[in-house]
Amino acid sequence: MSTSISSDALPNGLSVADARAEAARAYELDRAHVFHSWSAQAKLTPMTITASSGSYVWDGDGNRLLDFSSQLVNTNIGHQHPKVVAAIADQAAKLCTVAPQHANAARSEAARLIASHTPGELNRIFFTNGGADANEHAVRMARLHTGKYKVLSRYRSYHGGTETAINLTGDPRRWPNDHGNAGIVHFFGPFLYRSQFHAETQEQECERALEHLEQTIAFEGPSTIAAILLETIPGTAGIMVPPPGYLEGVRALCDKYGIMLIADEVMAGFGRAGTWFAIDPSGVVPDLLTFAKGVNSGYVPLGGVAIAPHVAASFDDVAYPGGLTYSGHPLATAAAVATIRAMEDEGIVENAERVGREILGPGLHELAGKHDVIGEVRGTGVFWAVELVTDRVTKEPLAPYGGTSEAKGRFVAESKKLGLLSFVNYNRTHVVPPCTVSDDEAREGLAILDEALSRI
Amino acid sequence: MSTSISSDALPNGLSVADARAEAARAYELDRAHVFHSWSAQAKLTPMTITASSGSYVWDGDGNRLLDFSSQLVNTNIGHQHPKVVAAIADQAAKLCTVAPQHANAARSEAARLIASHTPGELNRIFFTNGGADANEHAVRMARLHTGKYKVLSRYRSYHGGTETAINLTGDPRRWPNDHGNAGIVHFFGPFLYRSQFHAETQEQECERALEHLEQTIAFEGPSTIAAILLETIPGTAGIMVPPPGYLEGVRALCDKYGIMLIADEVMAGFGRAGTWFAIDPSGVVPDLLTFAKGVNSGYVPLGGVAIAPHVAASFDDVAYPGGLTYSGHPLATAAAVATIRAMEDEGIVENAERVGREILGPGLHELAGKHDVIGEVRGTGVFWAVELVTDRVTKEPLAPYGGTSEAKGRFVAESKKLGLLSFVNYNRTHVVPPCTVSDDEAREGLAILDEALSRI
Repeated sequence: MSTSISSDALPNGLSVADARAEAARAYELDRAHVFHSWSAQAKLTPMTITASSGSYVWDGDGNRLLDFSSQLVNTNIGHQHPKVVAAIADQAAKLCTVAPQHANAARSEAARLIASHTPGELNRIFFTNGGADANEHAVRMARLHTGKYKVLSRYRSYHGGTETAINLTGDPRRWPNDHGNAGIVHFFGPFLYRSQFHAETQEQECERALEHLEQTIAFEGPSTIAAILLETIPGTAGIMVPPPGYLEGVRALCDKYGIMLIADEVMAGFGRAGTWFAIDPSGVVPDLLTFAKGVNSGYVPLGGVAIAPHVAASFDDVAYPGGLTYSGHPLATAAAVATIRAMEDEGIVENAERVGREILGPGLHELAGKHDVIGEVRGTGVFWAVELVTDRVTKEPLAPYGGTSEAKGRFVAESKKLGLLSFVNYNRTHVVPPCTVSDDEAREGLAILDEALSRI
Repeated sequence: MSTSISSDALPNGLSVADARAEAARAYELDRAHVFHSWSAQAKLTPMTITASSGSYVWDGDGNRLLDFSSQLVNTNIGHQHPKVVAAIADQAAKLCTVAPQHANAARSEAARLIASHTPGELNRIFFTNGGADANEHAVRMARLHTGKYKVLSRYRSYHGGTETAINLTGDPRRWPNDHGNAGIVHFFGPFLYRSQFHAETQEQECERALEHLEQTIAFEGPSTIAAILLETIPGTAGIMVPPPGYLEGVRALCDKYGIMLIADEVMAGFGRAGTWFAIDPSGVVPDLLTFAKGVNSGYVPLGGVAIAPHVAASFDDVAYPGGLTYSGHPLATAAAVATIRAMEDEGIVENAERVGREILGPGLHELAGKHDVIGEVRGTGVFWAVELVTDRVTKEPLAPYGGTSEAKGRFVAESKKLGLLSFVNYNRTHVVPPCTVSDDEAREGLAILDEALSRI
């Protein structure tokens, strides 16, 4: 669990001394000139990252940290995968950019590869810059295709930071952006651990959550609802793997009432859940599927919407009224081509599934047996949530909804001291390493979690 | 004016035969799997671009085209600038991506460089993926800073494709996305050629446009208006360079009524207008300035907001409620660093100014003297609009607002046959080559325009 590296150079060739100088300058300029996401700017002391490789990143002092956050749960293929790095350099030398109205080999091949993995016939790809605009455009397509305006999405969800996307979101980040006029209505999904439905089993939770959704549809008016948009597995909001039958039930309600189903796979897709898409095990085919992050591990900004033929057909003869300068950017899509091919060739999705089943799942359940602060462990693949509570019976969170606490802050600090970069949200820590994580790295992370939990 | 290349290889080393095969495959997959921006999908026959260099691109048959569009008016530094290509490869090898909450050398240096060129003290940079989300976030900052909701923007404008951005937009692409609930009110800007104000001189147009804006503010209610957002020089909507005094007048109205001024410099910024920012000659300092495109010539998706200290201070102790996974992406910001340094070192902004003043401006006015179909020529730097009309007296457009026409289609096709890639919007053709365009290339483009105009 030593966090310092023995050699005097980082994996990108930077010496520790040079990395330290670079980090000091980066920090100084950051504090002078960089405005950060989701933050009170005067309270920030960001860590500078100077290098990364596989499951690790290096800070400004040359300390190595095991990246159990995958940054923002996006480096599914690990850091600095050589095939993706090479593909970016090759495409940069060949052709960096073209406008979206022209065709380009990298974009075409990325679209083909993505379509080869999406469920059903979702084989037309509209490329965006990230997940937020993917959801914005999916909602627009659903509204124009159905001629209806209202969209249902869930509490406990995150869908992005632009106007429609943040209003779709069901977490406190929506509140300062909510002016009550985005045409979005929120409902509750199944979540047995904190059930809204007084359920005692997953079967009951599933059945009652579907009843609740159908009642919401009935009272909102089916004729007013364009789409139901949901994260197949909610990510930042808590990694609640849907109980068997839930997604099938949502699809059936959509079919019954003429509502589009939009699956947000921005965080859950491309191997994270141990399958290409988190929706795969259900067999459900949505009308639209949004993606970003894992599609090229965030090496170059990219997102998109996979579109079913009947939705795409609405825009065969009438122009789709949306677009962006960097739609289908050659560099971003070349990175996607290299990422997807490497995932196929190296069995990276299979690795994520196996590590989850053999190591992370059993290991986290073992920690729950040792530490009373753990209220629940849930997940699949390399996509796990650990609920931290002050009391297992009342399930009182270790930090309040939308907030933090001293004990939770201590957990994060101790983890980092021990060499682990965590992804935390309110009272939860998420165990979300790259899909390429090795057995030893997974065990190393579990051991650090064990020690950090002992210290709070 | 020959459009074929004599050698059998494109500048990126691809042989013409290989380029042809690659383009055929790219086209086939494009038609099967790619969903394009702003288009009726069944009506598309996109040109495949296989290589580019400086002011030129190559199509799938190996034909060289002079790129007077700069793609979507973004390749200000020209195609495949070797310093930017090298910087992308170097950063890819060093560190492709980090999450936005961490600091990073490339992002810090890009923020410093951008801040060194923005007007006044706009020295805090929030990075986005493009222009649309830059405008979304600027509006959010203004709303939260002022505690007011309404935003005024102009007819004849484009501000992006996401929900708030497209509702800010003042062109027909807004219509299918407008549900009357985005808190945005449109007003008319100065445009003497098609004056809303029955003006006969620029002075009169300016004075009356400011009167109109003040009346709009008065009747909307100053206490309800968070911001006035405008393209310093409207881009796609027609490159209307503001008359002297207009921007100063808008700033004065903002100060008088406690309204934030947001300058959208997504298309006009970073050298396009022959100055670093189009707002520079006015001496006006906005409260927020949005950018994208030219910041790194679109080689990697990037946009952002430059923030005045008094606005940033609103988020010192209270979290700014917005963000995105790729905010301040290392690869995108490394490309910005290389682009801005090359622009400084090679006098690229000065070149844009000089070519506009010495060649494009005089050359286009000369064409207007020869061709009755030209109703007006206007612009600055490498940012010129040519109004095509069927009648100089009535100013009847060659294609209707929001539409196209046979004659306009013929103009585009003839230009392309002659080796010129044009940027057209309704009845206008825009002359928007890279800022690096040489005198000979500018003259070559003018000669093709001359010939193409003769054929319609």
